[in-house]
Order: sequence, then C-alpha cells, then structure tokens
Amino acid sequence: MAAERLVVIGGDAAGMSAASQARRMRGPDDLEIVVFERGHFTSYSACGIPYWVGGEVAERDKLIARTPEEHRERDIDLRMRTEALEIDTDGRRVRARDLESGEESWTAYDKLVVATGARPVRPELPGIDAPGVHGVQTLDDGQALLDTLTSTSGRRAVIVGAGYIGVEMAEALLRRDYEVTVVTRGEEPMSTLDPDMGRLVHEAMDAMGITTVTGAEVTKILTGEDGRVRAVATADAEYPADVVVLGIGVEPRTELARAAGLPLGEHGGLLTDRAMRVRGHQDIWAGGDCVEVLDLVSGRERHIALGTHANKHGQIIGSGVGGGYATFPGVVGTAVSKVCDLEIARTGLREHEAREAGLQFVTATIESTNSAGYYPGAAVMAVKMLAERRTGRLLGVQIVGREGAAKRVDIAAVALTAGMTVEQVVTLDLGYAPPFSPVWDPVLVAARKAVSAVRAAGS
Amino acid sequence: MAAERLVVIGGDAAGMSAASQARRMRGPDDLEIVVFERGHFTSYSACGIPYWVGGEVAERDKLIARTPEEHRERDIDLRMRTEALEIDTDGRRVRARDLESGEESWTAYDKLVVATGARPVRPELPGIDAPGVHGVQTLDDGQALLDTLTSTSGRRAVIVGAGYIGVEMAEALLRRDYEVTVVTRGEEPMSTLDPDMGRLVHEAMDAMGITTVTGAEVTKILTGEDGRVRAVATADAEYPADVVVLGIGVEPRTELARAAGLPLGEHGGLLTDRAMRVRGHQDIWAGGDCVEVLDLVSGRERHIALGTHANKHGQIIGSGVGGGYATFPGVVGTAVSKVCDLEIARTGLREHEAREAGLQFVTATIESTNSAGYYPGAAVMAVKMLAERRTGRLLGVQIVGREGAAKRVDIAAVALTAGMTVEQVVTLDLGYAPPFSPVWDPVLVAARKAVSAVRAAGS
Repeated sequence: MAAERLVVIGGDAAGMSAASQARRMRGPDDLEIVVFERGHFTSYSACGIPYWVGGEVAERDKLIARTPEEHRERDIDLRMRTEALEIDTDGRRVRARDLESGEESWTAYDKLVVATGARPVRPELPGIDAPGVHGVQTLDDGQALLDTLTSTSGRRAVIVGAGYIGVEMAEALLRRDYEVTVVTRGEEPMSTLDPDMGRLVHEAMDAMGITTVTGAEVTKILTGEDGRVRAVATADAEYPADVVVLGIGVEPRTELARAAGLPLGEHGGLLTDRAMRVRGHQDIWAGGDCVEVLDLVSGRERHIALGTHANKHGQIIGSGVGGGYATFPGVVGTAVSKVCDLEIARTGLREHEAREAGLQFVTATIESTNSAGYYPGAAVMAVKMLAERRTGRLLGVQIVGREGAAKRVDIAAVALTAGMTVEQVVTLDLGYAPPFSPVWDPVLVAARKAVSAVRAAGS
Repeated sequence: MAAERLVVIGGDAAGMSAASQARRMRGPDDLEIVVFERGHFTSYSACGIPYWVGGEVAERDKLIARTPEEHRERDIDLRMRTEALEIDTDGRRVRARDLESGEESWTAYDKLVVATGARPVRPELPGIDAPGVHGVQTLDDGQALLDTLTSTSGRRAVIVGAGYIGVEMAEALLRRDYEVTVVTRGEEPMSTLDPDMGRLVHEAMDAMGITTVTGAEVTKILTGEDGRVRAVATADAEYPADVVVLGIGVEPRTELARAAGLPLGEHGGLLTDRAMRVRGHQDIWAGGDCVEVLDLVSGRERHIALGTHANKHGQIIGSGVGGGYATFPGVVGTAVSKVCDLEIARTGLREHEAREAGLQFVTATIESTNSAGYYPGAAVMAVKMLAERRTGRLLGVQIVGREGAAKRVDIAAVALTAGMTVEQVVTLDLGYAPPFSPVWDPVLVAARKAVSAVRAAGS
C-alpha cells in the first residue's frame, strides 16, 4: 500500500497532466493515484474539434493525446465514466458514482486535484434541446454533431455566437459546403477584439461567403413537425437552419467545489494561490478550465478556458504534489484563432477591459504587411496597440491579417509580461528578412505610432 | 539660407532614414540637408536581392523604397554618384567627388551623419576578379549577376560561403535551375548557428539537391581560355562553375571615418553612444552597416549588417538631428533566413559566443512541430536553447524548421531583452490554437528542458 493517495477529479488536460507529472516524481509505492472521469475520453484536444468536424483532421482518435490504457500503464488508477458527486474536505474523501453500474462509493484522499473543466453556456431558450442543436465542447459533442451532419441533407447551418469557437465552426461548416450564418449579440464578430478590429474580421467573413448577423439576440430555436430544428429566431428575423451550433462561450464547472465550500471568484471559478493550491486548502489543488487566473495586465482575476493554460496548471500541480516547486504567475490574455486564411490574435487588454481596470490609455492602429511589400504574397495586416497614458506601458495588442499574422502577437505577450513600454518595444531586435517581415515589423510600426500617441496625449 | 546644414554620407537605409526623419522635424528654412551617395540608387532593400535574382521579385525597382527624385521632392539635396573622400572634423567640412565629372569640392556641415555601409569581404584569391564571379551587396551587383546568368548557358553555380547570403543565393540559383554547390570553411552550413543545428540545415539542403562542401577553404578561382571563371578550387578538389557567387560576409566601410580619426571598434565599425552619436563628437552621428552595436546578452560590441537595424539607427539619428530624443539600446543578435521551405533563426548567443563572453551555460535541444501534431501539414521544428548556469537566464535560441518556425525566435528575442530566465519563459502566455502551435509551444518545450538542465547542473 502506498504512503499517500492522490485523487484527481477530471481526466482531461489539467487533471491528467497533474497525474502524469506527479507519477513521474513519485513512484506507485509512494503515491497511489486515482482519477475520476465522467466521460469516455482522457487527455484530448477540445480545441481540435472544429478541425475534426471540418474534415481536416480525419479521425477523432487523432485528437486524443493519451488513452485511458496508456495512463493505466503508468500506474494511474483511472476510473472512466465515473462522476464525482461530493467532496468532503473535513473527512478528506470524495463520493463518486460509476455511471455504468450506478454504484456509489467514497474514496479517501491525502491530496486532491479539482480539474472539473468548463461547460458551454447553454441559454434557456425554447427549442434549445431539439435534435440538430449542438455544442462542441467535448469529443462526444463533436461526434454527435458529425452524426447530424452525415444524416441530414439540408445545407443551412446557423452558428450562435461569434467568439473563436463560433468563427472556427463557421470555417468547419463552410468546408463541408454549408451555407453558414453566424448570429451574434455583439456589434461585430470576434468579441475578443475591439469592434474596430472585429469589423475587419466581419469584412473578411463576408468575402468568404459567411453571413454574419450582428447585434442580434437569439430568442428561440424553432422546430419542425419532426421535432428537429428548422430555424433560429431573433427579435427581428428567422434564420432557416438544418443544423445549429452553439458557440456562446463556457463557464467554470464548479458546483462540486461550491458545495464543498471551496473559494470561488466573481466569474465562478476556483481561486488558487501561485502554486495552484486552492486558497486556504493546503492539500487541494485546482487547475484548467475550472479556475480563475490572474491577469497580469489588469491585476484582476479572469476565467480563460484554454488548453495551453490547463496543461501548464497540470504540470505545476503535479510538481507540487510530487514535492517539487513551480508556480503559475498569471496570464496576459493571449488568444489566436483563424477563419479560413484570416488570422486573428489578441493579447492584453481591449479598450473596455482597460477602462474597467482603471487604466487610461491611447490607441494606435496601423496597416502593414506580413512580409516585405515587394515579396510575393505580401498581405495586409492590421495591428492595434493600447498603451497607458503617461507611462507608455504596453497594455494590449490586437492583430488581424493573413499568414504569419497571428503568432506575431507573441511578441506583445512577452513584452506585456515584462512590463515594457511601447518605446521599449520600438527598439526590439525582431527577426527580419524579406520573406518574413517588412524592415520594420508591423508590431514595431504600431509601437512607433503608439509612442507618438502617448507623447501627443501629454501628461 | 537655412540656419544649419546637415551633411549625410551614404544614401541607403540609415542615411536616408536619418535625412527623412530630420526633414520631418525641421523644415528647409531651418535645416539644409545634403546627401552624398556614390551609387545609382537610394533607399533600397539589399536583403531583397536574392529574391530578385531568384525571380520571385520581378524587377529591380520593386526593391527601391524611395527614389532620388522622391527624396528631392522632400527638399533633400541628394547628390548621386558623388563619393565622399575626406572628412575634416576640425573644419567641419566634407570633400567629395562627382564621379561623372570628376570634379571635387568641399561642403561645410553643422551636423554630419556617417552612413557609409559595409562592403562584402572579397578574399585576395587568384582569379577573384574574373568575369562570372559576383558579390551581391548592391543593386549594381545584383544586376551584374543577372546579366551573367542570362548571357551564360552553363548551369553550374558555386557559392562561396554558407551564411545567410550564401544559403539565400543557393535557393535563388536553384530556382533558376542551376546545379548549386555551396563551399564553406565551416564545419556545417549556416555558421550563424551552432554546428549541431547547422547539421539540420545541411541535411535539408541535401534533400533539396544542393551540394554542400564543408571544411573547405577556397584557394583559387580557375579561369578558362576566355578569361571567364570555369571552376572554384580548394586544397583538395575543383568544383566546375559557370558562375560564382561570393557570400562570405561583409565588413564595415570605415576608411573615411578612420582617416578622420573617428573612433573604431575591434570589428572595424564606428563606435557611438546610445543616441547614435559618434563617441566624442557631439555633431557627428553614425548608423547602419558601418557601426558596431552593443550586444545586450554578451555586453560586448558586435558588427551586424542588417537593414532593420540601419532603419532604426536612421530614425534615431534623424530625431537627434531634429532636436528630439531617442536611443538605440542595443541588439540581441536576432537573424532569420530561409532556404526554400526551410526556415532558420537565431537570437542571443551561440555556444562559442557565450564562452567568449565568459558565460557558463547549459543547452537543451528539442524537436516539436509548428502546429498541433494532428493538424494537417504539421512539420518538425528543432529548437536549441542556451541558459546561464546557476541563474537560469536565457542566453540564446536557435530554430530550424518549416513554416512558422523562424519568427518564433521573436519570443526569445523579447525574453532576452527583458533578461528573463528560462523558468519565466516556461510560463509565458503564448498564442495557442491547433493551426498555430502544439498546446506547449516549441519554445516553451525547449525552456522546460532548459530548466531541468539548469537544475541538473547545480550550482
């Protein structure tokens, strides 16, 4: 019998990374590891679902980084289709139900990891549960959507929501020869950008043949006589639909944590310390889509569901459980996405986020190209930059362009982390050769304009 | 008559950027601007020459950002084909010769900018001046090479040197259906990388059908009865050649500066202060390929001929001349390049550079992919990272891979500038989505391995 038992609730990115890292650091004689996973899969890429639905990734299993069997070979007691129902922090135990047999039992823990993930926001609309209406959060969701696509002959798809899941699904369904309509409450698509930059995405989507309806709240899902979806209704109009995809966003899945009295933040996510320990609980860690993270630019907690953070959290938690030391300093809010050949990126704060954080700022927006203007295939790239008034500190960057545009946001992500001013950004020694950049990289051009804006704004 | 006169020696990137920025800040009544340029062109992209020779850029004029006429329209007295012969710092005047008429005259200055650029290293080898042997430093060089290519029927090209100019010219001549042989003294091609990373370039060049001869010093250029080049000889072998391109590197063109007693560094480049003023001379600035720059990682001066630096220098000098304030903090040694679809990048220090700087270090090399492994077209990318022993400070990164590999080096360039440790790099919030990156960006994977290497090395 092992000296200690680790229980992990949730077997995707954060949970399995934590379990794997803990196992690397402590052998099975020293640490028993039990993982409860409700679903059928472990360690898969939810971010890859749009590319599987769109047909670029041929099969579901390619999205699975490690199967339950592979985890078990590493001496992890992985209990699939097992749902955790209750955490008893005083008794240090978790009650769970085997979803196949219906049996329930308590499992004691010395150390606990909560990695319960997020759930898609599913507004309570009439018809929302009708056949043909799909979320795309899990592999099971993706399979259900694909089943609908293959069993339905109609070619009209409506996507509710125009965040990154929405636009990626628009691309996926366009690839499958659907007429795609994206309906969003927002002023422009890609609400992760300021509306002036979202406008560029809107125009590009128009050119791709995607219909975008903005400022439209969905009020109802209309069904036909067969009970299947037939249209999406807003206050003003009806949009015929053979299939509907919900891409409205996600929220932390923290009912278990809440019932156990674990501390939650204003966005409903678990609150942790720098080592990803749940605040006030020395033996409980939490990570991935169920936690809130510190935004280093605004100084406030945010909820960001993203596999790259979940994997880092898992690694850090596993180190902590294993007796090592690692911390997660926070995020700057970087996100990249694409619709067909249009690349979209952001990091740091948008205008309204900066205002909410009490920051005064100037903005600078420029157009440049991804390569030297004379190089074949040079394509326009727009960069918007926010800089703090007076100090000139970089606050955020948004980019919309073609090949090579999105990952340029990493330059700003590192500069934000380092607390650089836009004047410091101007002189950064970035890679230059004609196939890769104009002689002034577009990010530097934006920074030059931001420097002028900061000066012009005075003190 | 203007209050002051600015004289600029050299009308390419640094010189014309300085002149243009000074003009923006001071009108013609306040500042007269005279520029001497030896050649036929101003403000052109020398870095673009390989793509013009290779046929991707259709015509020479596309490489010219601004013509002499355009500069003159902005009230810059640009004297083409005029060579500066002497700087008299006591008398504050420059002697120059009109290369067409042969006339010489002195021009007085209040402020002087030295932007004399670099010249290609041209070893004193027998036959080096034979027809068919070409440098590729200036537009005139590029035109001469193109004339040779169109007038010669043979299809064998030998490139001497395998730095970035060498490999870019290898691509250009491959595109023109030449049999290409690259001859280098180095252990591997791309001497801007450590040999273990250069090896990856070598293998990729083999696969492209480029022959690379390493460890080979060229001893002679052999000519035929017609006086034209017929082969390149090393100590061991002869390589038949219908055309030879010299890509051995460049050195600062600073005879004028030396004769005038201006301070030169150990690489022969001018030494300036942070505002790009020549040290000890309040009214003389220098920038571009004729200066040495501070390497922020090693703390030593380097000579780096690169358009992106030259443009920044020009901008800063123009601000200074115009009465503004801007500084150039230094470089971290970032360079990106490509051979066909192989992308090559570096920033910071290589192993021998770190040793020369007195730095002890560990290395970590990893292989990952440019996008999620399951995403179509995912291609292998190798990242090598150097970190300082004990402190874990990032010292350098080298990357060899396919699309999306090279500009990832910017992440490291910013982190180097900020003085980050590899542990700080691991938690950077970089853009992640399956088309753009695995869930752990390759740079982060390298940093994780470097963290382990730093720990393993102990104190």
